[in-house]
Amino acid sequence: MTGLLTDLYELTMAASYWRRGMNDQATFSLFVRQLPSQRGFLVAAGIESCLDFVQELRFDEEDLRYLRDSLGFTARDLEAFRRFRFTGDIWAIPEGRVALAGEPLVQVTAPLPEAQLIETVLLNQVTFETTIASKAVRCVIAAGGRDVIDFSFRRTQGIEAGLDVARVSALVGFARTSNVEAARRYGLVATGTMAHSYIEAFPGEIDAFRAFAQDFPGRATFLVDTYDTIRGVERAIAVIKELGLQGRPGIRIDSGNLDRLTRQSRRLLDRSGLEHVRIVVSGGLDELQIDDLVRGGAPIDAFGVGTRMGVSADHPYLDTAYKLVCYGDRPVMKLSRGKVTSPGRTQVFRKSRPFGDLVVLYDEAAPAGREPLLEQVMEKGRRKGRRPALSESRARFEADLALLPAAARDLREPRAPSVRSSPAVQRMSAQTRSGLL
Amino acid sequence: MTGLLTDLYELTMAASYWRRGMNDQATFSLFVRQLPSQRGFLVAAGIESCLDFVQELRFDEEDLRYLRDSLGFTARDLEAFRRFRFTGDIWAIPEGRVALAGEPLVQVTAPLPEAQLIETVLLNQVTFETTIASKAVRCVIAAGGRDVIDFSFRRTQGIEAGLDVARVSALVGFARTSNVEAARRYGLVATGTMAHSYIEAFPGEIDAFRAFAQDFPGRATFLVDTYDTIRGVERAIAVIKELGLQGRPGIRIDSGNLDRLTRQSRRLLDRSGLEHVRIVVSGGLDELQIDDLVRGGAPIDAFGVGTRMGVSADHPYLDTAYKLVCYGDRPVMKLSRGKVTSPGRTQVFRKSRPFGDLVVLYDEAAPAGREPLLEQVMEKGRRKGRRPALSESRARFEADLALLPAAARDLREPRAPSVRSSPAVQRMSAQTRSGLL
Repeated sequence: MTGLLTDLYELTMAASYWRRGMNDQATFSLFVRQLPSQRGFLVAAGIESCLDFVQELRFDEEDLRYLRDSLGFTARDLEAFRRFRFTGDIWAIPEGRVALAGEPLVQVTAPLPEAQLIETVLLNQVTFETTIASKAVRCVIAAGGRDVIDFSFRRTQGIEAGLDVARVSALVGFARTSNVEAARRYGLVATGTMAHSYIEAFPGEIDAFRAFAQDFPGRATFLVDTYDTIRGVERAIAVIKELGLQGRPGIRIDSGNLDRLTRQSRRLLDRSGLEHVRIVVSGGLDELQIDDLVRGGAPIDAFGVGTRMGVSADHPYLDTAYKLVCYGDRPVMKLSRGKVTSPGRTQVFRKSRPFGDLVVLYDEAAPAGREPLLEQVMEKGRRKGRRPALSESRARFEADLALLPAAARDLREPRAPSVRSSPAVQRMSAQTRSGLL
Repeated sequence: MTGLLTDLYELTMAASYWRRGMNDQATFSLFVRQLPSQRGFLVAAGIESCLDFVQELRFDEEDLRYLRDSLGFTARDLEAFRRFRFTGDIWAIPEGRVALAGEPLVQVTAPLPEAQLIETVLLNQVTFETTIASKAVRCVIAAGGRDVIDFSFRRTQGIEAGLDVARVSALVGFARTSNVEAARRYGLVATGTMAHSYIEAFPGEIDAFRAFAQDFPGRATFLVDTYDTIRGVERAIAVIKELGLQGRPGIRIDSGNLDRLTRQSRRLLDRSGLEHVRIVVSGGLDELQIDDLVRGGAPIDAFGVGTRMGVSADHPYLDTAYKLVCYGDRPVMKLSRGKVTSPGRTQVFRKSRPFGDLVVLYDEAAPAGREPLLEQVMEKGRRKGRRPALSESRARFEADLALLPAAARDLREPRAPSVRSSPAVQRMSAQTRSGLL
């Protein structure tokens, strides 16, 4: 990975630190300042993609030429960039765990220039994946046990984003994805039906249904809303009966009043003895629409969720920061209006009942009855332990979700659990502040 | 590029078409159904990234194994995937041109399975880049000639997204970017100042300013809001005078009341004879805040714009569709509620005064006094002509923007120019619809 995947100021600051021998250990905390109003909790994600990046971060000869010729770095700077390897430690709340605002998701301790140089990529990937995980979980909660399927690939913010969205939505309980490369890469279940274009390419809707069912009898989910949804359902029923389709065929409705249309469709299917035929809906869905449909009792077996989950449409980012909290032996903080940070290297401890987190100094004694959240994921520049399987992270997520209070899971007016600081953290904050004023 | 970067149903439908010999020429239109309420126009982008992808799309042996072992495609299907090359034509509104909803941004004519197989990637990339271009241009308009700088890399939806955002924001007039790799890859100007961590790593703010100015006298923009903004400005002034800094040093304010603080800072700088020192602001800015600051007359030389532009925070996607409009000689359309499409292969003609577009059938005579917008960018599977330089696309964008009526450029209540259909398009629509009912 090229070290140029960063903001210019990281390079400039690192060069300045090196010139001045400012190589003491620094700790940076990556945290979310505040939750968006429609989020009662976060699901940590993104650190795993970062670890590979950090471990492989290098400046090759071509990079160095660009640093010299276009950015004006000196021969001595170039030598430091050439020698650069990340040698530090990283602690993180593991992927899939519930996390909250105001506590470190990631904490990096390394010689100052190294910790500085990985800022942009860490922030980017952890912000993005945590944003998507924390949105996708809302769709899963809304669906109340019905299948939720990732249909987002066509409108994510780029191709790589689409692959990440498929992985992260699977982490929080999406059952399948339409994204074939993501399915291959991450061992997910690929799924799909047919597009309106398929229907239109045939002389009539029933010809298209018949052709598809003949070609793929095991995966026939008929898209019924191209022309007239109820007539589409009737044609699907005719083809299912005509061909005696086995397995679990389905119909998909992608437009219109989904509550009304799914009830009508279910009645038509049941009257024809097709109780086993599944109903899938899609079309610009988000968690609030899913919630309305589920609460209303619409007979829906699976929700295809695309764009609004895949870009986290109502809040497509999180207010993350990567802040220096100590350098050498000195705790540091900033006092910028609305952005005051808390100094010191810390650990986070969780209590399940009542659910809440406590931020303590790194070297404080562990409080009784609480579990530490930050785990060491990199030691002296090497990943610590193997990369967890998606199934392990998903199990961890499910265990955490089960403990989360209902108020935090509420979709419309969520209330986040509390995050408190230990007296020692508060004291350090007060002392550091008074030293600065 | 692996052909697996797609939705599963594209593969399924293509296989079905191949089995049935449905290889006639099909035309698909990629268009935006409706503009978000805060957009008066779009800036077309994304097609250039797609052309390389489409031209190089292949299914290699490993892909074929996955298609067989995990997805159950037959030996005959695999043979068709193995032979796959895109051999069709693509027409597009060139990057940088102003575009509107309801007109094709891209039109693909190719044998049906080929046109179907490129859907997901085309939609993804054109949607994403057009979304960002159409958001970024609003920041440029708001800044009214002041510099706008891309600071988004740390919170874009992934690393690749960050590179694309830097390119696309430059296309619509951003002056510089903090993204070093994007600067190298696309020939942009990289820029940067310093982070709060740099200030905090030194014993005092003035030590940090002095160190930075000594190390990089040519690029010293002092971040003044770490502790107390006005005292930060005073310290920057002291260092600038002490070291007799040449060139164009600057200060950056990243928090607080930017209108008030920039006025106070400007007065302090001017009183010290430092009229040439620039004032840069940043910190969660979007086009509406920029507009307020500019209209209020705040003495700001440059705006650093990050997250809200880089994810198009108020509307992070566009309501795009890729719809079959004819197959063989037959125009087709869908009638789904709220998503009715218009049939037929088309061209778009533009009149500048009054500004408005007219959609006509592909083989209609060109209307007088209007310019065609769709240009052929791929012919028989090969890119037509060379990839335009970013500077050319930017010049095209600037020419279009200059012609756009003020109502379309309005930031708060934009009114989009009209898009009309020719009588022949309307007739074809009515006839096709009546044939379907």
